[in-house]
Amino acid sequence: MREECGVAGVVQFKEETHPVPSALRLYYALYALQHRGQESAGITVHDGRQPQTLKGMGLVPEIFDKDDLVSLKGDVGIGHVRYSTCGDSRIENCQPFIVKYKSGSVALAHNGNLVNGLDLRAQLEAEGHVFVANSDTEVIAHLLVKELLKYEPVEALRNVMKQLNGSYSLVIMIDDLLMAVRDPLGFKPLCFGTIDSGYAVASESVAIDTLNGKLLRDVEPGELIIFRDGEVESHQLFDEKYSAHCVFEYVYFARPDSIIDGQLVYRVRERIGEKLAEEHPVDADMVSPVPDSGITSAIGYSKGSKIDYEESLMKNRYIGRTFILPGQAMRETAVRLKMNTINENIKGKKVVLIDDSIVRGTTSRRIIDMVRNAGAEEVHARIGSPPIVAPCYLGIDMASRDELIAAHKTIKGVEAVINADSLGYLSVDGLVAAIGIGRDDLCVGCLTGAYPVEIPGESICQRRQLKLHEF
Amino acid sequence: MREECGVAGVVQFKEETHPVPSALRLYYALYALQHRGQESAGITVHDGRQPQTLKGMGLVPEIFDKDDLVSLKGDVGIGHVRYSTCGDSRIENCQPFIVKYKSGSVALAHNGNLVNGLDLRAQLEAEGHVFVANSDTEVIAHLLVKELLKYEPVEALRNVMKQLNGSYSLVIMIDDLLMAVRDPLGFKPLCFGTIDSGYAVASESVAIDTLNGKLLRDVEPGELIIFRDGEVESHQLFDEKYSAHCVFEYVYFARPDSIIDGQLVYRVRERIGEKLAEEHPVDADMVSPVPDSGITSAIGYSKGSKIDYEESLMKNRYIGRTFILPGQAMRETAVRLKMNTINENIKGKKVVLIDDSIVRGTTSRRIIDMVRNAGAEEVHARIGSPPIVAPCYLGIDMASRDELIAAHKTIKGVEAVINADSLGYLSVDGLVAAIGIGRDDLCVGCLTGAYPVEIPGESICQRRQLKLHEF
Amino acid sequence: MREECGVAGVVQFKEETHPVPSALRLYYALYALQHRGQESAGITVHDGRQPQTLKGMGLVPEIFDKDDLVSLKGDVGIGHVRYSTCGDSRIENCQPFIVKYKSGSVALAHNGNLVNGLDLRAQLEAEGHVFVANSDTEVIAHLLVKELLKYEPVEALRNVMKQLNGSYSLVIMIDDLLMAVRDPLGFKPLCFGTIDSGYAVASESVAIDTLNGKLLRDVEPGELIIFRDGEVESHQLFDEKYSAHCVFEYVYFARPDSIIDGQLVYRVRERIGEKLAEEHPVDADMVSPVPDSGITSAIGYSKGSKIDYEESLMKNRYIGRTFILPGQAMRETAVRLKMNTINENIKGKKVVLIDDSIVRGTTSRRIIDMVRNAGAEEVHARIGSPPIVAPCYLGIDMASRDELIAAHKTIKGVEAVINADSLGYLSVDGLVAAIGIGRDDLCVGCLTGAYPVEIPGESICQRRQLKLHEF
Amino acid sequence: MREECGVAGVVQFKEETHPVPSALRLYYALYALQHRGQESAGITVHDGRQPQTLKGMGLVPEIFDKDDLVSLKGDVGIGHVRYSTCGDSRIENCQPFIVKYKSGSVALAHNGNLVNGLDLRAQLEAEGHVFVANSDTEVIAHLLVKELLKYEPVEALRNVMKQLNGSYSLVIMIDDLLMAVRDPLGFKPLCFGTIDSGYAVASESVAIDTLNGKLLRDVEPGELIIFRDGEVESHQLFDEKYSAHCVFEYVYFARPDSIIDGQLVYRVRERIGEKLAEEHPVDADMVSPVPDSGITSAIGYSKGSKIDYEESLMKNRYIGRTFILPGQAMRETAVRLKMNTINENIKGKKVVLIDDSIVRGTTSRRIIDMVRNAGAEEVHARIGSPPIVAPCYLGIDMASRDELIAAHKTIKGVEAVINADSLGYLSVDGLVAAIGIGRDDLCVGCLTGAYPVEIPGESICQRRQLKLHEF
Repeated sequence: MREECGVAGVVQFKEETHPVPSALRLYYALYALQHRGQESAGITVHDGRQPQTLKGMGLVPEIFDKDDLVSLKGDVGIGHVRYSTCGDSRIENCQPFIVKYKSGSVALAHNGNLVNGLDLRAQLEAEGHVFVANSDTEVIAHLLVKELLKYEPVEALRNVMKQLNGSYSLVIMIDDLLMAVRDPLGFKPLCFGTIDSGYAVASESVAIDTLNGKLLRDVEPGELIIFRDGEVESHQLFDEKYSAHCVFEYVYFARPDSIIDGQLVYRVRERIGEKLAEEHPVDADMVSPVPDSGITSAIGYSKGSKIDYEESLMKNRYIGRTFILPGQAMRETAVRLKMNTINENIKGKKVVLIDDSIVRGTTSRRIIDMVRNAGAEEVHARIGSPPIVAPCYLGIDMASRDELIAAHKTIKGVEAVINADSLGYLSVDGLVAAIGIGRDDLCVGCLTGAYPVEIPGESICQRRQLKLHEF
Repeated sequence: MREECGVAGVVQFKEETHPVPSALRLYYALYALQHRGQESAGITVHDGRQPQTLKGMGLVPEIFDKDDLVSLKGDVGIGHVRYSTCGDSRIENCQPFIVKYKSGSVALAHNGNLVNGLDLRAQLEAEGHVFVANSDTEVIAHLLVKELLKYEPVEALRNVMKQLNGSYSLVIMIDDLLMAVRDPLGFKPLCFGTIDSGYAVASESVAIDTLNGKLLRDVEPGELIIFRDGEVESHQLFDEKYSAHCVFEYVYFARPDSIIDGQLVYRVRERIGEKLAEEHPVDADMVSPVPDSGITSAIGYSKGSKIDYEESLMKNRYIGRTFILPGQAMRETAVRLKMNTINENIKGKKVVLIDDSIVRGTTSRRIIDMVRNAGAEEVHARIGSPPIVAPCYLGIDMASRDELIAAHKTIKGVEAVINADSLGYLSVDGLVAAIGIGRDDLCVGCLTGAYPVEIPGESICQRRQLKLHEF
Repeated sequence: MREECGVAGVVQFKEETHPVPSALRLYYALYALQHRGQESAGITVHDGRQPQTLKGMGLVPEIFDKDDLVSLKGDVGIGHVRYSTCGDSRIENCQPFIVKYKSGSVALAHNGNLVNGLDLRAQLEAEGHVFVANSDTEVIAHLLVKELLKYEPVEALRNVMKQLNGSYSLVIMIDDLLMAVRDPLGFKPLCFGTIDSGYAVASESVAIDTLNGKLLRDVEPGELIIFRDGEVESHQLFDEKYSAHCVFEYVYFARPDSIIDGQLVYRVRERIGEKLAEEHPVDADMVSPVPDSGITSAIGYSKGSKIDYEESLMKNRYIGRTFILPGQAMRETAVRLKMNTINENIKGKKVVLIDDSIVRGTTSRRIIDMVRNAGAEEVHARIGSPPIVAPCYLGIDMASRDELIAAHKTIKGVEAVINADSLGYLSVDGLVAAIGIGRDDLCVGCLTGAYPVEIPGESICQRRQLKLHEF
Repeated sequence: MREECGVAGVVQFKEETHPVPSALRLYYALYALQHRGQESAGITVHDGRQPQTLKGMGLVPEIFDKDDLVSLKGDVGIGHVRYSTCGDSRIENCQPFIVKYKSGSVALAHNGNLVNGLDLRAQLEAEGHVFVANSDTEVIAHLLVKELLKYEPVEALRNVMKQLNGSYSLVIMIDDLLMAVRDPLGFKPLCFGTIDSGYAVASESVAIDTLNGKLLRDVEPGELIIFRDGEVESHQLFDEKYSAHCVFEYVYFARPDSIIDGQLVYRVRERIGEKLAEEHPVDADMVSPVPDSGITSAIGYSKGSKIDYEESLMKNRYIGRTFILPGQAMRETAVRLKMNTINENIKGKKVVLIDDSIVRGTTSRRIIDMVRNAGAEEVHARIGSPPIVAPCYLGIDMASRDELIAAHKTIKGVEAVINADSLGYLSVDGLVAAIGIGRDDLCVGCLTGAYPVEIPGESICQRRQLKLHEF
């Protein structure tokens, strides 16, 4: 399961002394968001006259050279980290995406996925627009420029958003004006805060923490924030009755130390563990996480169950881009390279193994086999999310429906496949309670098959209103 | 505090089918030992005719290219990962170190530090020897070649070892004969096991695990192991009354999933936490580790104290080679990049913070300040090792005596410097009990100032015998 | 003086066996055109379904990796090498430039410069077009797509060309249809020929030679060539009375072994030397070229004057990207690195030094000083082109009018600046005669200040017709 | 045919202001010597306390980074460029080669080849010496250290030289004392001169020119030069009756602008052409060089024969590391990439083609075929050296005797193989006359099979004295 992107923006005000250039601030912010995308990264700053960009494939520390970064002048800038499927991994698709038009430039960093991206592209192509990349971001850029030719930025954004269906947390520079906008249902996180010399906006609050800043609040669903003249302007462009925050940000993607829509991710994961202990108790000797994503929930399960927390799997912290030769011996080595068992802790024990989710089931099977081979008497799998029964159309590259094991098998069937003595998934209600946000304000499309927005060929969640409510 | 090196060796027997080349096995073994050295790595294999080597600066996955590795032919090979101080970080100092002499070649991979390295070098120079690098390994290579011109390998090794004072776990290839030897006091770890097609020897058992092998046992102090004709020959060359296993391998360096001299490191660290809870109880709301090295001891402290285990510091998993500009704002950012606080967990809480050791005190101070700024009511530091009062001469690049805070301050003084509400160090006896090996068989030189071997200007542990006991 | 670009295209027909992939053919063609641009290069091939591109900064052998190239599948493709001024040296400006639109894709490789590029861009921006790069090529791509939405390719190209003012030799792929077009005045060279399995088109015939192909002919000014179904279709879209071939292609840019508009460049340069000998005879001991550009003209001068041809300056063939420290000593070293004097040949001699042109005069001065310091009795500069008195707007990045020494000084004045005993420039008539093409069919704008197309603020050559003549 | 190496040394005196660091001077010197070795390069400087080295594989501008170079402190240093056969191309074999011994350090840069290198190595190995590389240089370093333990530098060098058989031009630093020495027969060139702030020594005078220095003279055969306390000390250690300067330095290797043993290489090559015209006149329309090595001789042939000098082959100046696929079409492309024909110059013409030498004959055949295919009526090959009938043991990696076409075929036979209408080799006497040094002072081993030193299995030139004459 892969997250698509992380976004960030920084504006520093000229009246302040700010010894750290904006480009460098963005570099650190992207470091803090690196878990949201490891394929490419980019930074665009604007010096009042024109935008300048550095982009590259790879991790943040590999891409950006100190001298290059320091040469990027400007008080305002945006940045992006990206994960992507293979076909699209060209430098042209890296963000920020910058276009020049009649009145200046627009730079965009986007996290999310448009359900109607291809339709909008086709419509623009029919009007004669030409494209150089494959991304939704380019579509949004073209729509925005169209509107900017007629309207000032707020109105332009409102008109663009009317046309978009899907998830988008956007950080935007129109010339040197920094803006941030979140789709009306607030699928993807986006928050902002103060830094010593201005403001920062980012996918997750850890980026603001890293800049020694102070989180002010989340950008609201449907809200446009403009950082102008040292002030934060709020424009609530759409006001939907319900939100649709992605539950997997809490379950898996976000860093535990981030606060998203008011909820500390660490606390949510701990509660997930506690709920799991309630819903699926088991008589066992120890609770162990599948590192790293299961750690906090395992702590919670231990608290809830009073069963000792004990590590049984050790992750190699230095795994980079490795390679293996074909053959079974090598495949096992590849698994062992990433994760080793602590046999003495496991031998003869009844182990509760906590993982965040099951997608295809193959990794779970391999891990449980390792734990069994290490001598476990019993292995009880406890999963910090409900069965994933349907694909995500809103920005997570999970897998196709065919590949999702829970879309085709009962829980007993999955239990057999992964070779667990017992398998317990958290219930949807349990997850909702753990998150602490009402079910109507969450997107649980992948867990129920009913989505908060209309998706061709899929059903829509009945309580949802289709029409966007302008504010 | 930095560990100097990790070593590994692999021999695969021709009668076996072994589809995975030895060079590739070593590559995976070095991956598993990467935590023991991140500056450079090297692999040497021998194809029966001559040795071939790949070396480079950087991490294992950065150095070795698949095509290059696969082109390294040979059933037997050795490998090395290395950390080093700045002055020596030249490619010439990277290991394995290979020399050619009258009868063939000798390749060496060394973990440890000779107390009399410079003396031996001077002595060899006086005899006309010339050197190309600065390492103890080159000295050992020259001594070994000298002996090999007169004696067969076992006798030659015995004669070399008589001259060496200090720590050395060595993996050696004399032409294509694989050997492993550990100094008579067994300072540094070294173990061996079977793999499907032969044998592997390594600094830590995790390397053997990674090869899906089975740990047979540690190389004994003073023992020479020869892997010859599909057999394991043991030659107990020296038999000291006491050993001197480095306690910091358990406290800090080794991976928790390694078994060293019969003790699982994870279990030792957990016991360290339990002992700490006994020795330094405190009334607190939560026990938190300084990640990653404090995690297992914090779990132990939680068990021992019945205080909840809760994370308060989150480590960024993606920190590579970053850079900062001068200035205070940047220094704080640099710390935040690596480790962030989970404020909601900390606010208003009395926190027990578990770390493995204190060297200079500066990092501890910075972390405790972060936790205080996050709103902790009290911060109680509990340290999984006794005060470090003296330098290490046996292979750990800790710091000079001047830099060691506990060499100059009382515990109360350190407590004040690091700004803790209370500070508790584990006692030497507590540490010894946690390790589970008798105090006489451990090296606690840095904790007491009395060393197991004679070191100019330092005192020697009274119970120790100076003379090497030949077997 | 720098040439902007080189272009190439290859189509191989499916009925033929063609063991060498088109991408590889283009790689070799670009090698042969490397002298036309060393900053970046790119190759785009089309496999019938979609275009695929490799681009990069640097020299051709540095950019393209064998495995990557071989993975570029397709029978048809285009390539580009580019030199550019600093501000534009971003990967986004590298060509081929590819856009996707309603009906498919358009890929373009362009050599030349539009006089009305910014106007066209502004006009397109006013219509709502957005741009990602700064190049004329992007402007042409947008215009072409606009027309392709309404017309088939030939008509579309005709309509685009009606709007363009300036120089353009274009190689185009509309989906997988290869086309080549030259502006109505034929400023920049473009020719095509057969290769064993299809056709090749290129800026210079040497690229076709390198593919072991056979030059068929130049693309005519105003002609569109389409390579379709194994045939070469010619569409004479515009038919101007006069052409305006760039004279500096002959004087300096093109390789001597290229044939451009029917004239072998080597032969032209030799005649330049002969004419120079006629126009500016001198009593001297030897004729020497400034290597490499003066070599052929020096041979011609020697023939014409019967004065011995002798080398006095030796060029270092291995000069790559070097660096110097500030200071006079270093500046001299930088010159010596590139070119050394053969003192024994020079000492006490009257030397005729042949160079192709003088732009700022600084390099000429430095070279003449070197020759004097080597002991020359007299140094007579003979220049293979007339004084450059005006800037080029048609694709050569010479210098601004301010920087052109001949725009501000008499010949006697230039002679003094460069420290020559005598200075002789070739006359415009002499150059025209040497080229062997009528003056009315050449562009001599930089030599006269009267240009073949309307350029704001400059005068137009009176004999020229402004209106494009459609055929 | 490949030259092995180029060497350089620089010393700058402290009383002088010398704003350009010695490391940078060496960098420029190596640039000027790049034609002598393109595989690797290295620079070692000494700051009075210790040597520091930068080395790498590739071309000079690729290896050395400005910041790294500037950080190499020291008034004195040596450098090396190297070409080598495949098996030895490891970083360990790159020079300068530095060893540390009892009294300090020795750094060596070597051009040449020892006939008894393996014997000396075996002898040292028998004495217990160990080696880390495969080079003669390491052997010389060990021998030198042995002597330095007993004698001061001059005596030590004398004793080393007594043991060496073969060619060696050495630049040496014993600690920070710069020395240069040439073998008693002076096979390989070595010269020295003044630079503004001290002295420079180099394989060729062009390196001194590049530093804006002034050539003083060649190091004499058997002479040791020491640059000490601002003075140049000469020690004539050996004084052979005859020298044995390598003729191929003049024919092929050296740059034309170098002066070697008093002879300007350009002038020698021109005389070679004149002699060729005398010895092998032909009725033809034009004289053309095979570029670049045939250029100067072709100018000479033209002068001697009064036949017009005209270029018929054009070399691509941008050929880097390219790759080709298997197959005939590709092989032809590979040739065309490097060299193209100017067909119009060739068609219907009787061409005299001047090349420097014929080794295997395959390249000559391919070039003559190209010229024929371009329409030449006749192609007459004239070769600026006699037939190569025997291998070189003194430092040139020509080819084995089996591969040398002239070792197995008559001139008529070679003429047939290369497909020439006529073939004329320069005579040995002609070559000697052109060089302007007595035959007894030249090495013509590869042209006669009789060598100036004893080589096992080969005959020795009768006039030669075997014993070294100490001065």
